[in-house]
Amino acid sequence: MVQRFAFHGRKPPVGAHPGVLALPEGGAPRRIHAISYGIDGVEEGDVGDIGALAPLRDGPRVAWIEIDGLGDEPGLQQLGSLFGIHPLALADVVNVPQRSKAESYEGHDLVIAWMAQLDDEGSCRLEQVSFLIGPHWVISFEEEGKDVFDPVRARIRGGTLIRSQGADYLAYSLIDTLIDGYYPVIESIGEVLEELEDEAVARPTRATMGRIHQARRLILTLARAMRQHRDALGGLSRGESPRISEGARVYFRDAYDHAVQINEVLESYREIAVGLMEVYLSSLSNRLNEVMKVLTVISTIFIPLTFLVGVYGMNFEHMPELRWRWAYPTLWVLMLASAGVMWVFFRRKGWVGREREGGGADDA
Amino acid sequence: MVQRFAFHGRKPPVGAHPGVLALPEGGAPRRIHAISYGIDGVEEGDVGDIGALAPLRDGPRVAWIEIDGLGDEPGLQQLGSLFGIHPLALADVVNVPQRSKAESYEGHDLVIAWMAQLDDEGSCRLEQVSFLIGPHWVISFEEEGKDVFDPVRARIRGGTLIRSQGADYLAYSLIDTLIDGYYPVIESIGEVLEELEDEAVARPTRATMGRIHQARRLILTLARAMRQHRDALGGLSRGESPRISEGARVYFRDAYDHAVQINEVLESYREIAVGLMEVYLSSLSNRLNEVMKVLTVISTIFIPLTFLVGVYGMNFEHMPELRWRWAYPTLWVLMLASAGVMWVFFRRKGWVGREREGGGADDA
Amino acid sequence: MVQRFAFHGRKPPVGAHPGVLALPEGGAPRRIHAISYGIDGVEEGDVGDIGALAPLRDGPRVAWIEIDGLGDEPGLQQLGSLFGIHPLALADVVNVPQRSKAESYEGHDLVIAWMAQLDDEGSCRLEQVSFLIGPHWVISFEEEGKDVFDPVRARIRGGTLIRSQGADYLAYSLIDTLIDGYYPVIESIGEVLEELEDEAVARPTRATMGRIHQARRLILTLARAMRQHRDALGGLSRGESPRISEGARVYFRDAYDHAVQINEVLESYREIAVGLMEVYLSSLSNRLNEVMKVLTVISTIFIPLTFLVGVYGMNFEHMPELRWRWAYPTLWVLMLASAGVMWVFFRRKGWVGREREGGGADDA
Amino acid sequence: MVQRFAFHGRKPPVGAHPGVLALPEGGAPRRIHAISYGIDGVEEGDVGDIGALAPLRDGPRVAWIEIDGLGDEPGLQQLGSLFGIHPLALADVVNVPQRSKAESYEGHDLVIAWMAQLDDEGSCRLEQVSFLIGPHWVISFEEEGKDVFDPVRARIRGGTLIRSQGADYLAYSLIDTLIDGYYPVIESIGEVLEELEDEAVARPTRATMGRIHQARRLILTLARAMRQHRDALGGLSRGESPRISEGARVYFRDAYDHAVQINEVLESYREIAVGLMEVYLSSLSNRLNEVMKVLTVISTIFIPLTFLVGVYGMNFEHMPELRWRWAYPTLWVLMLASAGVMWVFFRRKGWVGREREGGGADDA
Amino acid sequence: MVQRFAFHGRKPPVGAHPGVLALPEGGAPRRIHAISYGIDGVEEGDVGDIGALAPLRDGPRVAWIEIDGLGDEPGLQQLGSLFGIHPLALADVVNVPQRSKAESYEGHDLVIAWMAQLDDEGSCRLEQVSFLIGPHWVISFEEEGKDVFDPVRARIRGGTLIRSQGADYLAYSLIDTLIDGYYPVIESIGEVLEELEDEAVARPTRATMGRIHQARRLILTLARAMRQHRDALGGLSRGESPRISEGARVYFRDAYDHAVQINEVLESYREIAVGLMEVYLSSLSNRLNEVMKVLTVISTIFIPLTFLVGVYGMNFEHMPELRWRWAYPTLWVLMLASAGVMWVFFRRKGWVGREREGGGADDA
Repeated sequence: MVQRFAFHGRKPPVGAHPGVLALPEGGAPRRIHAISYGIDGVEEGDVGDIGALAPLRDGPRVAWIEIDGLGDEPGLQQLGSLFGIHPLALADVVNVPQRSKAESYEGHDLVIAWMAQLDDEGSCRLEQVSFLIGPHWVISFEEEGKDVFDPVRARIRGGTLIRSQGADYLAYSLIDTLIDGYYPVIESIGEVLEELEDEAVARPTRATMGRIHQARRLILTLARAMRQHRDALGGLSRGESPRISEGARVYFRDAYDHAVQINEVLESYREIAVGLMEVYLSSLSNRLNEVMKVLTVISTIFIPLTFLVGVYGMNFEHMPELRWRWAYPTLWVLMLASAGVMWVFFRRKGWVGREREGGGADDA
Repeated sequence: MVQRFAFHGRKPPVGAHPGVLALPEGGAPRRIHAISYGIDGVEEGDVGDIGALAPLRDGPRVAWIEIDGLGDEPGLQQLGSLFGIHPLALADVVNVPQRSKAESYEGHDLVIAWMAQLDDEGSCRLEQVSFLIGPHWVISFEEEGKDVFDPVRARIRGGTLIRSQGADYLAYSLIDTLIDGYYPVIESIGEVLEELEDEAVARPTRATMGRIHQARRLILTLARAMRQHRDALGGLSRGESPRISEGARVYFRDAYDHAVQINEVLESYREIAVGLMEVYLSSLSNRLNEVMKVLTVISTIFIPLTFLVGVYGMNFEHMPELRWRWAYPTLWVLMLASAGVMWVFFRRKGWVGREREGGGADDA
Repeated sequence: MVQRFAFHGRKPPVGAHPGVLALPEGGAPRRIHAISYGIDGVEEGDVGDIGALAPLRDGPRVAWIEIDGLGDEPGLQQLGSLFGIHPLALADVVNVPQRSKAESYEGHDLVIAWMAQLDDEGSCRLEQVSFLIGPHWVISFEEEGKDVFDPVRARIRGGTLIRSQGADYLAYSLIDTLIDGYYPVIESIGEVLEELEDEAVARPTRATMGRIHQARRLILTLARAMRQHRDALGGLSRGESPRISEGARVYFRDAYDHAVQINEVLESYREIAVGLMEVYLSSLSNRLNEVMKVLTVISTIFIPLTFLVGVYGMNFEHMPELRWRWAYPTLWVLMLASAGVMWVFFRRKGWVGREREGGGADDA
Repeated sequence: MVQRFAFHGRKPPVGAHPGVLALPEGGAPRRIHAISYGIDGVEEGDVGDIGALAPLRDGPRVAWIEIDGLGDEPGLQQLGSLFGIHPLALADVVNVPQRSKAESYEGHDLVIAWMAQLDDEGSCRLEQVSFLIGPHWVISFEEEGKDVFDPVRARIRGGTLIRSQGADYLAYSLIDTLIDGYYPVIESIGEVLEELEDEAVARPTRATMGRIHQARRLILTLARAMRQHRDALGGLSRGESPRISEGARVYFRDAYDHAVQINEVLESYREIAVGLMEVYLSSLSNRLNEVMKVLTVISTIFIPLTFLVGVYGMNFEHMPELRWRWAYPTLWVLMLASAGVMWVFFRRKGWVGREREGGGADDA
Repeated sequence: MVQRFAFHGRKPPVGAHPGVLALPEGGAPRRIHAISYGIDGVEEGDVGDIGALAPLRDGPRVAWIEIDGLGDEPGLQQLGSLFGIHPLALADVVNVPQRSKAESYEGHDLVIAWMAQLDDEGSCRLEQVSFLIGPHWVISFEEEGKDVFDPVRARIRGGTLIRSQGADYLAYSLIDTLIDGYYPVIESIGEVLEELEDEAVARPTRATMGRIHQARRLILTLARAMRQHRDALGGLSRGESPRISEGARVYFRDAYDHAVQINEVLESYREIAVGLMEVYLSSLSNRLNEVMKVLTVISTIFIPLTFLVGVYGMNFEHMPELRWRWAYPTLWVLMLASAGVMWVFFRRKGWVGREREGGGADDA
């Protein structure tokens, strides 16, 4: 689960005009897909020319315009003037990263959200997705068009429930799909934390430390995004936008609830990750204690014995013991007895012998 | 007290229609028990067909419909249309886990709560319990029907006080029973923390660390649930639902107070658990100090002596001491004196001798 | 300062009827003392029969009914119906522990407070004290009647100021007396923290760790109680109860101020206690460093020398040095010089010699 | 910077009458200085008899009455009745310590503030200063009269701006002078923290730990006082008192801003102090690592060599090497080579040799 | 990234008159640059005499007066009276540091902001920049005139959009330019944190610790400034000033959003920095463990062997082994076997051999 935390945004130069668009160089070629639907049916297709979107603007059918790739300034400016988008709203769409938020402008709302996706190696990718919500249309912007909205597209094509609702319900469906995308990510984090806990307690390696820290950073980043989602969805569900109908607000409240729930789970993950670092440190201390006990036991038993044999290695002329018949075996008996006493003493202190028998009886 | 923290919810596929029910596979077979009561008497029985519940809907008697096991989609959909349940409310009941909350819908309220129970090995089980509260009825949903509501059932059968009250009082009784179920759990946590404190101070083992961390995780989880309960009950006691009468609000305020109290106890447990990890780390440090003192005392006494006896083990031809008559006993006297001086020095520093005599006089 | 933190409440069985009283078994025999006063004089005495309290209920004189010991259910029920006490209020009085709070019921207020007292060994005892405040009466409930309210009793008997005021002022006087009782406790904690600081810096023992942790637990418990007091008194001073007159509110505001002050002191004590644990850990590290320096100095000086004398203890036939006339004294000179150089080196590093001369010059 | 944190207040006995004054024994003799001024001029002088202050009470000139030393109960009672001071306000003035606050009473305001002053040894002294603000007068109370208000006195005597303003502006001037007195203190703390940082990184001694902890305690105490000042000044600047005119509020807002700023600086100092303790602990660990590396290098090089020379010190009859002609020099070569290899190995690991050359290349 | 945290403000003497200006000694010579513009064109130039600014005051063209260097008291006073600046506002401009804030005065607003700039060595410089906003003019104050506002100047000269807006839009443009200046700084901090993470995990040196602490201090300081910006801009965007038109508020809201975003990034950086210190401590512990394992392995293998060879170095007359033919080779076999067994044992424990092969398999 790799995720770097440096803040590398795409910003216009400092002091630039508000509303200046800092377009990505070498961005993906723009692709525009439009879906227009009503109770009676669905029309959809890729659109080459922005101007062709004009008939979708004024209803009564609901239009969903998907824009993948932000690298086309004139097109975006044209889109902006066609749908009456405020320059600041357009700038927030393009100049990523923006914080997730919901803002009302004259004639439309801007919702900025963050999509979280696990990629194939299990690391987490965050991408800004923006929505402009008008009376009869929703324009969604993604930098790299992924298939995240496929289920919504399928529901529009297949079902009739979504087709009987307005643009606000469409917006809800899209945002809710994004929020739901966090569940697999936090399940994966939960599993990583469980693994790390086992690792930190039972076999801490140097890599454990790095992994705990990385999990912590990822949790922080997701929690930050989700707190912003929560606030934005809270505003929408309280009816701060005139374009969200009373009936749709209950759906936004549901999405808000999910954001709150994910946020609370992340908050407790955060605290668990902090605790894991402490568990890891404790494990290291335990290991050090174990190492030092081995050293101390060996040293304490053999250093005095080595002294003793040194004594009888001296070359004094007058050392009567050297001539005694049973001196040598007696010394062995004494040394073995002394080592035995030491061993029993250390065993009583729990420094030897029981260490591999079971965690519970393991003395720290 | 085992409790894993990975978030493994049952969710509809990402992007699914709101209101889609993600039913558990192999769920317990559905069981519906209905109780209908008034001042005059109680009728109750198991119900096989959802349709048979229709007469309970419109009062004036109060009906309590218990549904155990969520694995029956058509039945739930039928129930929903019979009692006019909002699809999102029904989805929240089925797609566990949801956060605990109280929400007002047209014609009914949804209260989601979390039941905490100690199982036989002393670990804590959390289960979502949902309540739909209408003007004359309460529908409760549990995944695994346990006997937790037996006392309420007994009170309905036996007493008359509860029978003279409405559905709001019934809802209160059920929720309060759930909240009261946390008291044995937090008493048990309190006991575990006391044990762990003694363990961490007096005989820290590697298992202690794991147990402290687990207690901390459990406390975090319970505190999260209880904070949500507190907020939900706060809303109900402030009269945010039209179905809670003025007279019943004082009871909900009482349940709210209990939730606040439990939450505050959990908050201080949380901080105590953090402190315990520090106590544990200190104990490890103390142990290491003890081990190192033993090593240092032995080494410091014997290493110089070993050097000394090494000196007189040398084979130089010209070492006059080797021939002195009293050299050997003199050397012993010197060595014993040096060891004695060292011993006294270490004793003064508190590194030897007093360690088992009492905690208070024990030098760190 | 011993104080255990397990939550051992007295609760009715889970799911019991709200208002069920969980009376203590073998509780102290109930004792009822009534004082009735006005400007003109004071009447007081022990009351055997609850019914005898009826004349005190309706004024105009102010009545203070003290009830010590909660072990008498029929009496409490009788009292409740005589003074019109809400069953939930009565249950909160009996089913301890409740959180401290102030609640308005029809016809009376309930104030629950926690009394803190140092006992003879300096440990802190917390006990729930409840007050029911009516228009002309205050009923106080204690589990173990202590003399804590003696000063108020004396003021009623002696002075006239309190006798010219109503039941609200009496309630204030009683609650303020309880709050004032925290001052000696926090002074005592402050002294313990000062002692512990000296201990943790200068002579950390294993007991220090336990004492810091205990102080921290006690501070947490008191702060929790005091936060609740603050909130309850804040409500009363803002006039949330119709029974607290405008004139009495200023007194409640004064008690509120004291609760805030005590709470802030406890908050900073809490942070100091956290810091003390870190100081303690640092001291342990310092000690370990000191121990390891001794070991390292001794080993580093003598291990090479021991090697050297080992060399000349070898029995090779062709070791010309062994026959040199001045080899032995030369070796001694070399060894002493080497030890001296080492000593100077370690002294420069600050590892030897200056350790007892003064804290400031002491190298870590 | 010494400052003890035990809470040693002067309180009336627990349960005493509200408004009882707990006067300091052996307090400084009371000294009363009165200044009365208007546009036209200033009159001032020491006042012996409280009664002599009566003409100052009703304006139109502004009077500032300074009272130094609180040890005179009858005088204070007389003052209270002369200026119509509420008994609780008078009690708060005398029964120090009170928390800093601003409270409106009938006819006057009470402002309690805390003066912070560096004394000659650089430790910080806190003293309660109280202000009673009436329509035409300000009464200030200090326990030990210092010259802190000299600048205000000078401005009254010298300038005309302050003389054209009312009592509210005078109160502001006095309080602002107190708040400004914190700036030198926090500058001094900032310098101490910088010193401690250098010390903790470069040459941590045992005293460092104590100094960090003391700085932390002082910061906590000042932050507590300043938070209270902020709240009190916020209330005054929002016009919660009828005696603060619209025009004076902007000045109080300025003082409020200063309190907020000081508080924010203290908050970041607090976090820096916490971080310093961690830096200190890291330094200790670094030191221990350094010590252990020395021990390990010496032991690892010499212990095997000592073993080897021990081998050839054995007295077996059949040890052919002993008779070889070049055995002894060969052994020396082998031993030197082995030591050399070890040395290179440890150097590669960074355990020897580069430690004093520079912090950056220093291996931990 | 060096940044010292002592609070060294420039303040008037304690107790001075509010509004007294504490001018910097040896401040940069004052330089005044004025730009006056409208749809029709731009006039600009350096202004020597404050009096010459009078025509700019009353519109209808918008005037931007840049003042670099604060060391000219009479000039500032003259400016103040010319534009009707409140003395407190002028004092806040001059007596740096002030906290960032937005305040409305009669006839003008005061906005104080903090500019953050990376200097050439990558350290971060903070400087107070103040704005006075009138109906038709903005006066900006900087201590050291830098080119930070060049882009705005260029936009005024070049574009027409900004020239069609009022003074509020000009104020926004200037403040937004300052806020945008934080992005490069936080990107740089993000990069430093990434470097430090790699360093703390892979090769912790003593300098790492200092760098983490410094990064933390810088983050704290920036977060403090940005929190203040956020609050000030929040007030302006909510329309707390009569001089900010409805249309300009949406721009201020955009700047507010940026401040919130930066603040949230800084908050998570702060937590990451705290985590890095823990990672660093863990790395130190890992290192110590590694060192101690080497010592223990060497000691445990050789100390018993040394004892053994000592035994056969004794000079007892009756040691039959000494005469055995194969005693010496047998002993060698035994010793090698014993060392081999030890080696295998330590290898199994993971104490030897695999340490450089890979982080993951590395045993802690």
